[in-house]
Amino acid sequence: MSGTGVNLGALAEFNVAVVLDAIRRHPSGVTRTGISALTALSGMTVSNVCRRLVEAGLVIEEAAPARGRGKPPKILTLNRNGGFAVGVHIDPAVITYALIDLSGRVRERIRTATPTVQDAEGVVREMAAMLDALLLTAEIDRGRVLGLGVASPGPIDPQTGVVLNPPMLPGWHRVELRSALHLATGLPVLIEKDATAAVVSELWFSEPGERRNFAFLYYGTGFATGVALGGAAVRGVSSNAGDTAHIPVDPTGLMCDCGRRGCVGVVTAPRTLVAEAVRAGVLTERQAGDTTDSLQVGSAFGLLADAADAGVPAAVEILTVASQQIARALVVVVNLLDVGEVVFGGPFWSRIAPVARTVLPEAVRTDPGLVVPHGIRFSESSIPGDVAAVGAATLVLDNAFSPRPEALRIGTTGESAGRFSVPFSTP
Amino acid sequence: MSGTGVNLGALAEFNVAVVLDAIRRHPSGVTRTGISALTALSGMTVSNVCRRLVEAGLVIEEAAPARGRGKPPKILTLNRNGGFAVGVHIDPAVITYALIDLSGRVRERIRTATPTVQDAEGVVREMAAMLDALLLTAEIDRGRVLGLGVASPGPIDPQTGVVLNPPMLPGWHRVELRSALHLATGLPVLIEKDATAAVVSELWFSEPGERRNFAFLYYGTGFATGVALGGAAVRGVSSNAGDTAHIPVDPTGLMCDCGRRGCVGVVTAPRTLVAEAVRAGVLTERQAGDTTDSLQVGSAFGLLADAADAGVPAAVEILTVASQQIARALVVVVNLLDVGEVVFGGPFWSRIAPVARTVLPEAVRTDPGLVVPHGIRFSESSIPGDVAAVGAATLVLDNAFSPRPEALRIGTTGESAGRFSVPFSTP
Repeated sequence: MSGTGVNLGALAEFNVAVVLDAIRRHPSGVTRTGISALTALSGMTVSNVCRRLVEAGLVIEEAAPARGRGKPPKILTLNRNGGFAVGVHIDPAVITYALIDLSGRVRERIRTATPTVQDAEGVVREMAAMLDALLLTAEIDRGRVLGLGVASPGPIDPQTGVVLNPPMLPGWHRVELRSALHLATGLPVLIEKDATAAVVSELWFSEPGERRNFAFLYYGTGFATGVALGGAAVRGVSSNAGDTAHIPVDPTGLMCDCGRRGCVGVVTAPRTLVAEAVRAGVLTERQAGDTTDSLQVGSAFGLLADAADAGVPAAVEILTVASQQIARALVVVVNLLDVGEVVFGGPFWSRIAPVARTVLPEAVRTDPGLVVPHGIRFSESSIPGDVAAVGAATLVLDNAFSPRPEALRIGTTGESAGRFSVPFSTP
Repeated sequence: MSGTGVNLGALAEFNVAVVLDAIRRHPSGVTRTGISALTALSGMTVSNVCRRLVEAGLVIEEAAPARGRGKPPKILTLNRNGGFAVGVHIDPAVITYALIDLSGRVRERIRTATPTVQDAEGVVREMAAMLDALLLTAEIDRGRVLGLGVASPGPIDPQTGVVLNPPMLPGWHRVELRSALHLATGLPVLIEKDATAAVVSELWFSEPGERRNFAFLYYGTGFATGVALGGAAVRGVSSNAGDTAHIPVDPTGLMCDCGRRGCVGVVTAPRTLVAEAVRAGVLTERQAGDTTDSLQVGSAFGLLADAADAGVPAAVEILTVASQQIARALVVVVNLLDVGEVVFGGPFWSRIAPVARTVLPEAVRTDPGLVVPHGIRFSESSIPGDVAAVGAATLVLDNAFSPRPEALRIGTTGESAGRFSVPFSTP
């Protein structure tokens, strides 16, 4: 079976996706009759689809363990090793590569420092080399890799696969990442904004019915808020939805690149908090290092978080104020979209979390500007730090396997709330 | 046919909605073959559905005008008079009642001053009486009225049909409007937030493919921003989506009820601008009247708008600054949702429009905090002033007739991006 590859095209059908989804959500296996009951598809349809899934190596059918008399029924389980996906998360400090299997389990992971792009070809060559290393380390045949998902800071152009001018990636200007990566690896490549990849990941790993409408607070070198409505990620007309960095939260705060004071992105950025920690005597200049270097900021922010964990009042105060500022931005999002849940994650979330998880929910709930007449659940991503890398990989699975009822809608443009096909328009 | 009523239940099916939608979008008529081509439904299905629609009186089938030789084909057109819907828009100043026919055309309209609710029963009695007057004036049989849609300032509880504590309706506290109106009129009653009703109206009157992703700036006594994604109104888990009044846009601005300065809702409110006009000498105290009385504010705001139209610099300046502040709030919405279009409307839009339509788009496009890498279209609602009342009426048609592919998705909770069935949760 290995090396034959998987024909995604032939599987990209609604019923196939529905059946596969039912199977993957029952790790201990489910019978054909069970699938029929779960999906309301006819026994005949389920049998046909299952046969194709077994042939494609995505699903395994075998006798259930014998219990008492009678022939045990045959049950279907996902073949974890039937396919794989690779996610690449381009963070300003670190590039994370994650290999996941068909069940979404992370099988291998590599991290490298993010190069500034003086030499885009060199970056793509390095990425292709890391992918090779990932597959070799995990002993995975390339023919079983369904695709490569890339999570990048925005703005991006998903139609052309170009990373535009992310404010946090100074050297990156109109890098044609998708086509270059496709040429270098031979794999289908999907590109997505980091916060959106995080949303896709949360949706993928949630139980059906759970976490269908939420805001995802993405706290990393950059600040963003991904959104899921009705079980689908909100991408927007150019796939750049989720930018909340310029919501004003502190009229007397730091000046933002945009020329205004107190945008939440700048006042709560790790580099800003590190600089405050130096002023407050929590960190020495030497500990802070170069606050324009994302990698050094990451280390220094870790020290600030350690100080807060150890109870240093000035450190706690810095993270408390930042949490309150983040809360104000979240209130704007919750009021606009009336979501009932906020999920926390992103590369730096775990560092701010010990303070933020006590301060932030209360600050949102008691905010005098909160309008929605219901409680709000707060939860944390199950994979906060790697959510974008794993999310990028789940993009590939999600693109292939998630049931999308709108695919049934004949005679439309194929557009839907969750999956726009509106052409990208330039200014 | 009159007086028999329409059985909505029997028509609330996907194929029926698809066919009806195709027919209503071709005012000059379409053949069965044409419908088949438009919808990709089989000729047999189209014929069955058309027969039922003709029987229900919603569609008329007749021979096309003869052209040359041969028997002219039969064409189907919407029976405008086959059904009607009534929309009620509760604005803090004025209640607007609109009767629309099946094509969405407004057939009759009544306005009354909004009572403060000391006596909720009295209000409901008055509403029922106005409905009677509307039908009598228009000579419409009550049996052809499909339902009553109510657009109200938020927050609302659409599950129970209760208007909670809208900040702009001081006397209204937990008014059980839906059940009371249903009892008083015998009609099905839908309740929706005003800005959402406006979004539904825009979607209803747009051509297929046009205006599917947009923010609707609702400028009235209150300030809100409705959202459409993928051709569906974003309602949120409690149908209270669209509240953008507390986005901060002016650190030194007026104090808001929430206790913070410069929320866009308060600094751009008609009553605030009227008060500024008095300070600037544009209006006399007498012209301004009582700025806590919504009806008087409406008149005074009209005088301010007249002064701006006449070129009085201080009046132009007041509306220019307000437009710039609204632009800043819109940038937050556009960045978060990456919409490509902003639609303007609401009860007071037409008054601010002469200034706003020259200032606001440019202010959004040149805002240094705008992140989305594409142009933004700005357009005006085709029925700006009455958009919420007509929108409330289209809710009824939309609920009955709009094709919703997710209805096909068997075995789910019936929830979708556009139509949540998540139970309303109290804090």
